[in-house]
Amino acid sequence: MNKTLKELAEWVGGTVIGDGDVVISGVGAIAEAQPGEITFITSAKYLPMLSTTGASAVIVSPDVTRSDKPLLSVANPYLAFAKILTLYTQKPYQPKGIDPHAWISPTAQVGKDVTVYPFVCIGDRCSVGDRVTLYPGVSVGEDSSIGDETILHAHVSIYPRTIIGKRVILHSGVVIGSDGFAYVKEGKKNVKFPQVGHVEIEDDVEIGANTTVDRAALGKTVIHQGVKIDNLVQVAHNVVIGEDSIIVAQVGISGSTKVGSNVTLGGQVGLTGHITVGDNVMVAAQSGVMNDLAANAAYLGSPAIPHREQMRVISATLKLPEMRKTLKAIEDRLKRIEGAMSPKGKEE
Amino acid sequence: MNKTLKELAEWVGGTVIGDGDVVISGVGAIAEAQPGEITFITSAKYLPMLSTTGASAVIVSPDVTRSDKPLLSVANPYLAFAKILTLYTQKPYQPKGIDPHAWISPTAQVGKDVTVYPFVCIGDRCSVGDRVTLYPGVSVGEDSSIGDETILHAHVSIYPRTIIGKRVILHSGVVIGSDGFAYVKEGKKNVKFPQVGHVEIEDDVEIGANTTVDRAALGKTVIHQGVKIDNLVQVAHNVVIGEDSIIVAQVGISGSTKVGSNVTLGGQVGLTGHITVGDNVMVAAQSGVMNDLAANAAYLGSPAIPHREQMRVISATLKLPEMRKTLKAIEDRLKRIEGAMSPKGKEE
Amino acid sequence: MNKTLKELAEWVGGTVIGDGDVVISGVGAIAEAQPGEITFITSAKYLPMLSTTGASAVIVSPDVTRSDKPLLSVANPYLAFAKILTLYTQKPYQPKGIDPHAWISPTAQVGKDVTVYPFVCIGDRCSVGDRVTLYPGVSVGEDSSIGDETILHAHVSIYPRTIIGKRVILHSGVVIGSDGFAYVKEGKKNVKFPQVGHVEIEDDVEIGANTTVDRAALGKTVIHQGVKIDNLVQVAHNVVIGEDSIIVAQVGISGSTKVGSNVTLGGQVGLTGHITVGDNVMVAAQSGVMNDLAANAAYLGSPAIPHREQMRVISATLKLPEMRKTLKAIEDRLKRIEGAMSPKGKEE
Repeated sequence: MNKTLKELAEWVGGTVIGDGDVVISGVGAIAEAQPGEITFITSAKYLPMLSTTGASAVIVSPDVTRSDKPLLSVANPYLAFAKILTLYTQKPYQPKGIDPHAWISPTAQVGKDVTVYPFVCIGDRCSVGDRVTLYPGVSVGEDSSIGDETILHAHVSIYPRTIIGKRVILHSGVVIGSDGFAYVKEGKKNVKFPQVGHVEIEDDVEIGANTTVDRAALGKTVIHQGVKIDNLVQVAHNVVIGEDSIIVAQVGISGSTKVGSNVTLGGQVGLTGHITVGDNVMVAAQSGVMNDLAANAAYLGSPAIPHREQMRVISATLKLPEMRKTLKAIEDRLKRIEGAMSPKGKEE
Repeated sequence: MNKTLKELAEWVGGTVIGDGDVVISGVGAIAEAQPGEITFITSAKYLPMLSTTGASAVIVSPDVTRSDKPLLSVANPYLAFAKILTLYTQKPYQPKGIDPHAWISPTAQVGKDVTVYPFVCIGDRCSVGDRVTLYPGVSVGEDSSIGDETILHAHVSIYPRTIIGKRVILHSGVVIGSDGFAYVKEGKKNVKFPQVGHVEIEDDVEIGANTTVDRAALGKTVIHQGVKIDNLVQVAHNVVIGEDSIIVAQVGISGSTKVGSNVTLGGQVGLTGHITVGDNVMVAAQSGVMNDLAANAAYLGSPAIPHREQMRVISATLKLPEMRKTLKAIEDRLKRIEGAMSPKGKEE
Repeated sequence: MNKTLKELAEWVGGTVIGDGDVVISGVGAIAEAQPGEITFITSAKYLPMLSTTGASAVIVSPDVTRSDKPLLSVANPYLAFAKILTLYTQKPYQPKGIDPHAWISPTAQVGKDVTVYPFVCIGDRCSVGDRVTLYPGVSVGEDSSIGDETILHAHVSIYPRTIIGKRVILHSGVVIGSDGFAYVKEGKKNVKFPQVGHVEIEDDVEIGANTTVDRAALGKTVIHQGVKIDNLVQVAHNVVIGEDSIIVAQVGISGSTKVGSNVTLGGQVGLTGHITVGDNVMVAAQSGVMNDLAANAAYLGSPAIPHREQMRVISATLKLPEMRKTLKAIEDRLKRIEGAMSPKGKEE
């Protein structure tokens, strides 16, 4: 594809500085970009690379106003680059039809222009939307529905009665609707608490490889629209994740916890069960959240407390060995003073 | 299904308070339950909901003695509810037979009344019990055996020579019998230590989605009966987990570690290798266990120490920034005192 | 197989102490070994077991010089045992051919003497080397290549354009080439940053069950030769892992981080993005690495600092409750001293 820099600026709502007629045929990272390609820098730190990059044009933030290279100035260069990269790399969808090696229940309804690879299994009474792609080995349990343009990668497992929205992407090995983890002790024996609820995944959700989302005990586990979940994340039964939240790899969310909208949970964070995390919260990597978290704030640590406070605690903790020495020195000084002040004076 | 409250009370060994003839046709959570349904409360905290729930009867603990609603009084309401929920929701097993799209080795032995979905693969010399259910894409490696009434969900992978008991449930993506992680350095190169042992999973074990259990180097990795393991757990080679233990999501248990019976490991706990965890131990979420843990106690932290001690440490740690201020103030006061006491008096 | 102890000593470069003609027909752990088998001890701690083991010979380190049993003395007994175990247990590769229930694109090229199980799916234009083994349900996306003698266990998912070297072992449920986790906020909406790079896995890499390796955003994610990765590990986009490094279970490595060669990352370690870990670094289990780590050193903690320093910090932290008491006692003593020194003397 060929576009002029001017056309790209229009596409992303930016302005050209320099030659707007330069033709852009591709996209590259700043260190590897070739002539004919466009690249981007997100901060002034990378300004020196403007003169060494092979790219023919560079997307920059408004504080960069001049360069030898033609520039595309825009409020958020990373966002603009993402959009231009999509423009250059995303091929139009071409349905491949249903491979004869797939198995589809006669009671399932499959939309038009789908792509179904070999060894896909679609259970009884399922509903699959238009332009859906099911990669090899996907298994869809009975009574489930999958919205238009959704993509399920190889070996995704959908348990019965799951509801999946439109334009959802589930990566390989994702499991949706497995039983929640609930047992009641009867003596020492674990009696299974039946998990008879289901999972709903709304539109525009993306879930990373080998992540697991358990069905509700009663009611439903819900991933609201626009949520993005990374690889190897555990979402327990009856969890609700609010719109547009970001869940980084290896996070674990325990049962019945409610995560607000626009939340970010860093990698390997753990949330205990039955708590509420407010909107716009950020939890730093490896934190352990034991209590409700108020909205619009950042948290850190295990147990997690406000980020700023925890930074002070961490800083003090790292000075602990020094503090112990100080404490011993203080005790020695006190002893001397007390000795000097005692009736026996300095004889001690 | 319709049962009177009196019949349900008999089923769970409880007593009726109020109208025992009320007919119960289903089950619901207290906030959503409808007329005709039974619900439960586990603590007096939820007492106010007794008057607002739509349920026709409520399972309560013996301390609740009166209500507008008919009550089913029982020592453990959560357990009673689990049993009644099972009664109402568990359908009798209906074998579906062997789908012609499954592949079964001619040397495998398959029991009666099984359900084998498409694209299941059963290797040479395997033995599969009666009433076993194998969901789409399950792969059973050669020389493995699977006990009666066991359920393997979609995409479970069983490596060769695995022994699986009766009434076991393995959720989607579970891997049993993969090679343990063992290499010996020869210079900088990693020489593989062959993993020639196997895995035994005893009766009534349930294992969550995408959990992995490695085969032993020599000998066997053993999951004893009644153990329940959540999603995304790592069980390394030669680990032994004792009866009825509960392993919450994303736990990692390193090689040759022995976990006692009736143990609970909280989410994201890590256990180092070659240690022993005593019976009835509880380890809190995100803890890191570096040493043997004595039986019948609770532990917390990384490194894990007795729960109570760690709570004191955590509480003190959170006050560290304050302690540092106190320490500085003390040093100033000491300086003043020492100045006052020195030969030169306060001139210093 | 039967070998004399002398032959085994030659095989591993060791020397015999005692009867070199004893015939060894198998291998066992010291507690279970039977007559006719060889076993090993790695440290003098196990010396007493030399007299009780049923084994006919024992591999020992050079500091053990006498025993009733014939000994095989060698610098690294564990390495020697691994090699002898391999000798006794590794069967020569026997190709089984391509099962008719596999699906192979007519444009794919498959080498000779391969083993392809049922329900394997090989996409368009793929290249599969000689003596490759693909277990049931493996899915290889289009334009990928797989080197000679590589083994992909059941349900491995390879996304398009992945390059896999020779003698690689990928365990069940491994996902290679899933999209990296990258979004740009446009208001509150998450705009996907396209992931158009790929993954390269070099020769002699082994990757554990259900581990995920994401494709690069641009360019490539690289696992260099000889790297060994355990189960349930997350390797994000554009990560590079240097030769012969060891990554233990449940580690998470964030985007664009470079791990040096011969590094060891302990279980459940997390690495933040865009950092560099030097060669020969060891990071202890559960650590959280927030910054570059200098080569040839050991690190511990979250945030990770040099191991020795962190041990001092942990040791001091565990004494914090005691320190608080000391601090209070000091304040009391100061108060008394200040009281005694004040104009009002001890009257206060």
